[in-house]
Amino acid sequence: MECRVGFVGAGSVARALARAASARGWPVCFYDIDRERAGEAASQYGGLSFSSLQGLAAESEAIVVAVPGPAAGGVMVEAARSSRSGTLVVDTATFKRGVVAAARGMPPRVLAALTHPLFGGRASRPEKHYVAVMPFPGREGVVEAERLYREMGFNTIRLRSWEEHDRLAGYSIGLVYALAEALYAALESGGLDLDSPLPSTTYRVLGMLAQSVLSDSPDLRGEILSNPSTREAAASLASALMEVARGAGPRGRGRSSYNLLYRLLEEC
Amino acid sequence: MECRVGFVGAGSVARALARAASARGWPVCFYDIDRERAGEAASQYGGLSFSSLQGLAAESEAIVVAVPGPAAGGVMVEAARSSRSGTLVVDTATFKRGVVAAARGMPPRVLAALTHPLFGGRASRPEKHYVAVMPFPGREGVVEAERLYREMGFNTIRLRSWEEHDRLAGYSIGLVYALAEALYAALESGGLDLDSPLPSTTYRVLGMLAQSVLSDSPDLRGEILSNPSTREAAASLASALMEVARGAGPRGRGRSSYNLLYRLLEEC
Repeated sequence: MECRVGFVGAGSVARALARAASARGWPVCFYDIDRERAGEAASQYGGLSFSSLQGLAAESEAIVVAVPGPAAGGVMVEAARSSRSGTLVVDTATFKRGVVAAARGMPPRVLAALTHPLFGGRASRPEKHYVAVMPFPGREGVVEAERLYREMGFNTIRLRSWEEHDRLAGYSIGLVYALAEALYAALESGGLDLDSPLPSTTYRVLGMLAQSVLSDSPDLRGEILSNPSTREAAASLASALMEVARGAGPRGRGRSSYNLLYRLLEEC
Repeated sequence: MECRVGFVGAGSVARALARAASARGWPVCFYDIDRERAGEAASQYGGLSFSSLQGLAAESEAIVVAVPGPAAGGVMVEAARSSRSGTLVVDTATFKRGVVAAARGMPPRVLAALTHPLFGGRASRPEKHYVAVMPFPGREGVVEAERLYREMGFNTIRLRSWEEHDRLAGYSIGLVYALAEALYAALESGGLDLDSPLPSTTYRVLGMLAQSVLSDSPDLRGEILSNPSTREAAASLASALMEVARGAGPRGRGRSSYNLLYRLLEEC
């Protein structure tokens, strides 16, 4: 057990988490299909890199799978197969539906949970950020996953289920992605574009927001846009905009009656 | 002619413009239905305040009408009636359709143009900001209006018509307002709200943008939301979002083929 945490994938999410872990003096290890990238990450955070997933899994106390969402479920199964009994295996994917479907085949001797860092790969200062943690259906491991992230310095928020998480992610992350994609089409038909420096300040902020989301890879954008929760959120915003187009006046302001995330937190 | 510029209305737009004018040493004057507010603005910018619109109009070389949009057309007519021959009268309203309809009755001896500062009342540093200038249909005055704003230190951009302006404003200003209103309804149905501090960074930016727009007065929001150009833009964004909801994948990025505002600028 040379690795307190073994990261499968050495991209920006793994590095953001590894930075927090290594700041606490933890031994961190990496495996990536791009061996050079794993080696770079290992030397950056003073850890080891492995040339096989099996090698990393056998030597890790906990395994964090930080690969693109569509691959995450299969990689969790592979990592679990080579892990010792009682090892914690978690994912970091944005949406969970596919991960759960693909990873149901994990051997029962490992612990498992679903997790989701609520920050991008460029974030610093872990103490300012949250990681959402939720049970893998029918498995132990959520308590251990929460402890892992807290010990790394993050705040955690426990959600009841992946369905709850996907819905919240659809209305926060997915909705922003859907909006960014849709803006291009709408602005083209109005003769404007996102780069225009001239219109109002709020328009420029909207443009910067959209540009920032659209600078993510087409693969990630496709993954987020194709999720049913994103589609639900996009349809809901479209309906509300049609109401405005039909002449609904300004709504009352004020905060909505409760914040679901906080409610869930208080219930746990 | 004691006033290089006479402002009708002493709110945030008039003050932002007066700050630029007085920085150039121009005598600026104010009339407001709230006499105290006119007096405050006059003392702040070293000018005069008038207790009647007629008084201000008779003493002003140029008149800038900076009152809520629905009132602007009628006030332009009133100001023009009391002005000397050759006085320039301009509005500052966000949308122009109603202004044009209401102000067609101005006497022919005044010059008139439609203008729109592309910044909020809290903006500073005029040299960084633009004022859109467009002809009042069938009237002289657009050249003089452009010169007025340039001499105050602003960049100007000349648009061909109020219809063009309303369409651009609908797709930049109106669209952001429509989006802010619609977000409340959509997020409520998803169990989130704009104040949630937990979700992703992009969501938080979207929330701040919406909160900022929604902090404008219900009157201004109602005026913007009820404009046909805003409704067109909102309907267009709704259609594009429905496409995303139906499963359209990520679009190609890249800038749209041209920027209409720049094209218009180059043509002038």
